[in-house]
Amino acid sequence: MSRQRAKAFAPATVGNIAVGFDLLGHALDAVGDTVTIQRLDTPEVVIADILNADVPLPMDPEKNTATAGLVRLIAEKNLSFGFEVTIEKGIALGSGMGGSASSAAASIVAAEALLDEPLSALERFDYALTGEAVASGAAHGDNLAPALFGGIQLVTSIDPVRITPIPAPEGVVCALAHPHARLDTRKARAVLARDFDLHDFIHQSGLLAGFLAACFHNDLEMLEAHLADILIEPLRAPLIVGFEQVKQAALAEGALGCSISGAGPSVFAWCRGEEAGQRTLDAMSTAFRDAGFEVDAYLSPVDARGARLVGENQ
Amino acid sequence: MSRQRAKAFAPATVGNIAVGFDLLGHALDAVGDTVTIQRLDTPEVVIADILNADVPLPMDPEKNTATAGLVRLIAEKNLSFGFEVTIEKGIALGSGMGGSASSAAASIVAAEALLDEPLSALERFDYALTGEAVASGAAHGDNLAPALFGGIQLVTSIDPVRITPIPAPEGVVCALAHPHARLDTRKARAVLARDFDLHDFIHQSGLLAGFLAACFHNDLEMLEAHLADILIEPLRAPLIVGFEQVKQAALAEGALGCSISGAGPSVFAWCRGEEAGQRTLDAMSTAFRDAGFEVDAYLSPVDARGARLVGENQ
Repeated sequence: MSRQRAKAFAPATVGNIAVGFDLLGHALDAVGDTVTIQRLDTPEVVIADILNADVPLPMDPEKNTATAGLVRLIAEKNLSFGFEVTIEKGIALGSGMGGSASSAAASIVAAEALLDEPLSALERFDYALTGEAVASGAAHGDNLAPALFGGIQLVTSIDPVRITPIPAPEGVVCALAHPHARLDTRKARAVLARDFDLHDFIHQSGLLAGFLAACFHNDLEMLEAHLADILIEPLRAPLIVGFEQVKQAALAEGALGCSISGAGPSVFAWCRGEEAGQRTLDAMSTAFRDAGFEVDAYLSPVDARGARLVGENQ
Repeated sequence: MSRQRAKAFAPATVGNIAVGFDLLGHALDAVGDTVTIQRLDTPEVVIADILNADVPLPMDPEKNTATAGLVRLIAEKNLSFGFEVTIEKGIALGSGMGGSASSAAASIVAAEALLDEPLSALERFDYALTGEAVASGAAHGDNLAPALFGGIQLVTSIDPVRITPIPAPEGVVCALAHPHARLDTRKARAVLARDFDLHDFIHQSGLLAGFLAACFHNDLEMLEAHLADILIEPLRAPLIVGFEQVKQAALAEGALGCSISGAGPSVFAWCRGEEAGQRTLDAMSTAFRDAGFEVDAYLSPVDARGARLVGENQ
C-alpha cells in the first residue's frame, strides 16, 4: 500500500551570494519551512493549515507557493488521489531568506513520497518553481535550486532548466542576521529599474568569475578578494537600516565577505570556520540591535543539505 | 658569463572568449610574435629592427609595446646593461588577436633570459603590461595573461594583479579566421559607450558563470549552452563585414560557440576536436572570402602554450 502521509523540511537559502544576482544561491541548514502532506482520496489539493505565518498567506492552493506546483502535478501526472497540505513556516515572509522557495521545495519533496514513482530532479525543480513563481511574480531558481538540492547552486536558465552545483569552499560557514523588518521584494527590485554602466558590469563580472574560480580551487584568499557586490548592493543598501554598520561589524571580525541575502533585509557573511562565524554573527546581530531591530541569528555551513523527508516518515 | 642573446616567441590570443569581456583570454599556438634580444653594454633599450610589420610601428623604445616594459625593467632593477631588440611580427595589427600583448610577452621572456636572476611570474606580467598599455591605452591583461602563461586565463584585477588559470575543456580546439581588414580597437570600444540594461547583464553573467563551471566540470554540452555573447557582440558585429555569415557557417559545422576575437575583426570558434575544427575553419574562411576578404586561418588547441624561449638559445 502506498504511503499515506509524509513530512519534509527545506532549508532557507541565501540568494545572489553577492556576486551572482539571480544566478547563485546556497542553503542554510539552521532554519527552513516544513510541509506535511496527507493523502486525499480525491485528486485535489487542500490546504489544511498554515502554522507560524507572520502574515496571512493564501489558502487557495493555486495561489499558495507551497501548493501551486502540486495542483499542476495532479493534472499532469493524472493522479487519482490528492494532497491535504499543512505548512509550517520557519522563515519569515520578506526576510530575504528564500521562504517561498523553501515552502515549494518542502512541499514537492513531501508530495513525491506519496507517488508510486519518484520524480526526476528536473521535475522536482520544475513543479516547485511553479509554486515559487506564484509568490514572487518571477522565479529565477536561485533560491529554489539550493533549497531543493543543498550546497551552492548556479542556475543559468530555467527554460531549459540549467542548474550546476558549485563546490563549497571547505569549512566556510555562513552567518546570517535577520532583522525584524520586512522588505517587499518588488520594492527591492524597483530600485534596480535603471541603466547600468559597462565598467561596473565588468567589475562585477570579474567578482563573479573570481568567486567561482575560488570555489573550484578551494582558495579562501581568492574568495575573500571577490566575495562582494559593487553593482546591486549600493542600490539596495539604503533600503536596509543599519546595513553599513552590520557589514562593517562582519568585516571587522574577519569575514570573507558580507552582503545582502536575496533582496534583504537579512544580511549574510561568509566566515572561516564555525568559531569565526559565531563571533561574526554576534557582531552583526549587535549592530542590527543597535539600529533598533530585534534579530534572528543563524549559523550554517555553506555546504548545507537541501530538502529532505523528516520525522516518523523519514 | 651571462647570456648575450635570447629569442622568445609568444602566441596570439583570443581575448574575451565571448563570455568574459576584458576578463578572459586563451592562447593560440598557431601564430605569434617573436622577439630577439642582444645584450648591450649600456643600460638602454634600442630597437634594432621591426620585421614583417604591416604598418610602421614606433621605433622609440618608450612608445613600442615590446620595449616600454624593458625601459622600466632597466630602471627598476638598476641594470648595468641594456637590450638591443629585434621584433618579428607574426600577428597583424588591429586583427583582434592580441598582437600587442604577444610582442610584450615575447620581449619580457627574452629579456629575462639575459638577467642574472629570474623574474617572478607577477613581475613578468607587470613589466609586459607596461608595454601593452602603451599600445592599447588601457591594458586589461586578458590577452597578456594567456600570451605569457598559456591556456585559458582569468584576470580579475591588475592592481593588485589577480590571474587565475581556468582548466581548458579536453580536446577543444579553436578555429580562428582573420579577414584582411583592420579594426581600430578604439572604434570598437566607442560603440560600447552607452548604458546597459540589467536584464542583459544578468543574462551575460549567467553565460560567464555557466562557461566557467563547464570548463571546471569539463562538460562540453554545458559549454555549448553558454559560449555566447549577448552583450557586446551585437554592438560590434555590425563593424565586421561578413560576421553573421561566418558565425552561421561555424555553428552549421557544429561549433560549440563562435564570436569575435578581442575587438575583432577576427572571429573564433571553439570546436570538438581537430577534425571538426578544420571543417569549421574552412567554412568560416570561405564565408569571409565570400564577403570579399583575404583570410588567414589558424587552428590551435585551446590549451595552447604561452611565451617561451625558442631557437638556438632555447
